[in-house]
Amino acid sequence: MENIETPALVVDIDALERNIAKMARFFRDRKVRLRPHFKTHKCPRIARMQIEAGAGGITCAKLGEAEVLVQAGFGDVLIANQVVDPPKIARIAELAREAKITVAVDNAENVDELAKAAEKTGVTIHLLVEVDVGMNRCGVEGAEETLALARRISASKSVVFEGLQAYEGQLVLNPELQQRREGVGRMVRKINSIKEQLAKNGIAIKEISGGGTGTYNLTGSDTPWTEIQAGSYVFMDLKYNQLGLEFENALTLLAMVIHKRPGAAVTDAGMKVCSVEFGLPQIKAAPGVSVRSLSEEHGNLVDDDDWLRYRQKIEYLPSHSCTTVNLHDRLFCVRDGILEEIWEISGRGKSR
Amino acid sequence: MENIETPALVVDIDALERNIAKMARFFRDRKVRLRPHFKTHKCPRIARMQIEAGAGGITCAKLGEAEVLVQAGFGDVLIANQVVDPPKIARIAELAREAKITVAVDNAENVDELAKAAEKTGVTIHLLVEVDVGMNRCGVEGAEETLALARRISASKSVVFEGLQAYEGQLVLNPELQQRREGVGRMVRKINSIKEQLAKNGIAIKEISGGGTGTYNLTGSDTPWTEIQAGSYVFMDLKYNQLGLEFENALTLLAMVIHKRPGAAVTDAGMKVCSVEFGLPQIKAAPGVSVRSLSEEHGNLVDDDDWLRYRQKIEYLPSHSCTTVNLHDRLFCVRDGILEEIWEISGRGKSR
Repeated sequence: MENIETPALVVDIDALERNIAKMARFFRDRKVRLRPHFKTHKCPRIARMQIEAGAGGITCAKLGEAEVLVQAGFGDVLIANQVVDPPKIARIAELAREAKITVAVDNAENVDELAKAAEKTGVTIHLLVEVDVGMNRCGVEGAEETLALARRISASKSVVFEGLQAYEGQLVLNPELQQRREGVGRMVRKINSIKEQLAKNGIAIKEISGGGTGTYNLTGSDTPWTEIQAGSYVFMDLKYNQLGLEFENALTLLAMVIHKRPGAAVTDAGMKVCSVEFGLPQIKAAPGVSVRSLSEEHGNLVDDDDWLRYRQKIEYLPSHSCTTVNLHDRLFCVRDGILEEIWEISGRGKSR
Repeated sequence: MENIETPALVVDIDALERNIAKMARFFRDRKVRLRPHFKTHKCPRIARMQIEAGAGGITCAKLGEAEVLVQAGFGDVLIANQVVDPPKIARIAELAREAKITVAVDNAENVDELAKAAEKTGVTIHLLVEVDVGMNRCGVEGAEETLALARRISASKSVVFEGLQAYEGQLVLNPELQQRREGVGRMVRKINSIKEQLAKNGIAIKEISGGGTGTYNLTGSDTPWTEIQAGSYVFMDLKYNQLGLEFENALTLLAMVIHKRPGAAVTDAGMKVCSVEFGLPQIKAAPGVSVRSLSEEHGNLVDDDDWLRYRQKIEYLPSHSCTTVNLHDRLFCVRDGILEEIWEISGRGKSR
């Protein structure tokens, strides 16, 4: 890490590769596919590694991220949220000239406008009807609404009803395996019932997309889901560590001690490079050292044993990788502590 | 706001101009000068407005910000923190070819390295010895250490002892005026005593730099301070609103309702565009509407009276402007709700 200026977001490539390989192995002989989420790393280079390991396409949260992915050559992109503003719908139609674009819908007006834009541009846009499976965010409530939207989509030639988006965001970070399991059970029953209702009305569901790092092996085992949108497994973080999963921390924030006094130290890395909404970061491999607080550009550390030295480089383990990555433009990729490559976080800030 | 795609960071130019004018008016007939902090807006265009209103130079937090400022033509830049890594010290020396650069120090080794780099590059670097005035972060403790560093600086021709950096970060957000006043009183006594000790030893202090939006009229009135580093007054935020200052909220985050159901609504703006470490944002001018939570790319709103409509644009009032700005590349500047200009946030992410 000697030649990396701080603060810097660092990826342990070996750990990253192991995480990607482990997740790929889980999906290798299953019918359900991995469609990894771009929102965690926002880095086309990592998305490419995920595809090369067997992923069927990429998930992203925002149209701006989808544009980055298509520009980087990805041909099958799911925007796992609603896109409702007319200028954005026009951008989706443009994007659909270059790649297969799927987007979530939960509103009839939105379906009509997507269909109109697709027709006008001469493209096809693929749609998943989002069903709320307990997150209480977007999505329709039940079979009746799902059926109405599916019919509306099927009535238009420029949009294709692909199936359902059903994401259990309320479960993926629940540290209790039993609660995650029960929650997945409940949503499987709900989606099975909706699927049945649609089948009775002659509408087939091709894809069901959802799942996350905390539920990939539950939602991804013996359920009707066809795609799992896990993202955080590539990097992990302190919050996901609580789940006891088999993935490793591959992402750290390199900082430097810029001030040392007895019992304490101050670094050059604060909230502008490390998010704190899931709690403070921890210091990797630094006995007796803990983070007291982060201010905007400083870390205030407790160092009771005076283990740290002035100008020492240390690594934070972030509590939330997804929002920490969004603060950075580049990933410094190391193997055995040696800088190997620098990757662009091209999706950083692409929330529009 | 009709033609602004969401989510977008919006500046009310009228309110911004009034804030800048109000602060400038305070300093017009005083010996103490305003050296506004770049870390809040990170936008050279706004820094230019502050200089044109009478500010004597610009303060910033990081070397990367200083580089943005110098590139934008600013000739007098204070980095109000320690810069200790050798490659960064070389960057400071390079920057000092183009502009007057002042930097805070609290360590003899650091002084020596800055002096060496300045000499090698053939430039002068201006130094402020940082004194801890209760923030418990960086800085030296008392007169003895200050004197030792001042002497060390004075012994070298390539660095200039300008005086002290004394920033009361622990006070600037204290909502109790009386506590801010008493705190400023304590630090004035400490700094006066250090100043006296240095004078006895034949060392004159030219500048004392510190202060913030919450203390500008305390630290800026009848104290030995010569520069006030206020930043947040340009935009304000929910946290600063608690202080009852005379500045207006000039910064909002424009979001769109992408999902509406009875009693609730969901927007397209979450933690990746609006920081939450100081609390959730509020919704401007939306009766009965409040923010229940932010997820990464969504705002989950309570809308008991069903006041909101599908696809309505609304404005968040951020709880912390400085970290929210750091999530964005552009400021959408409106007057009477009409988009007038788009300004680059060139300092975004410049934490290195």
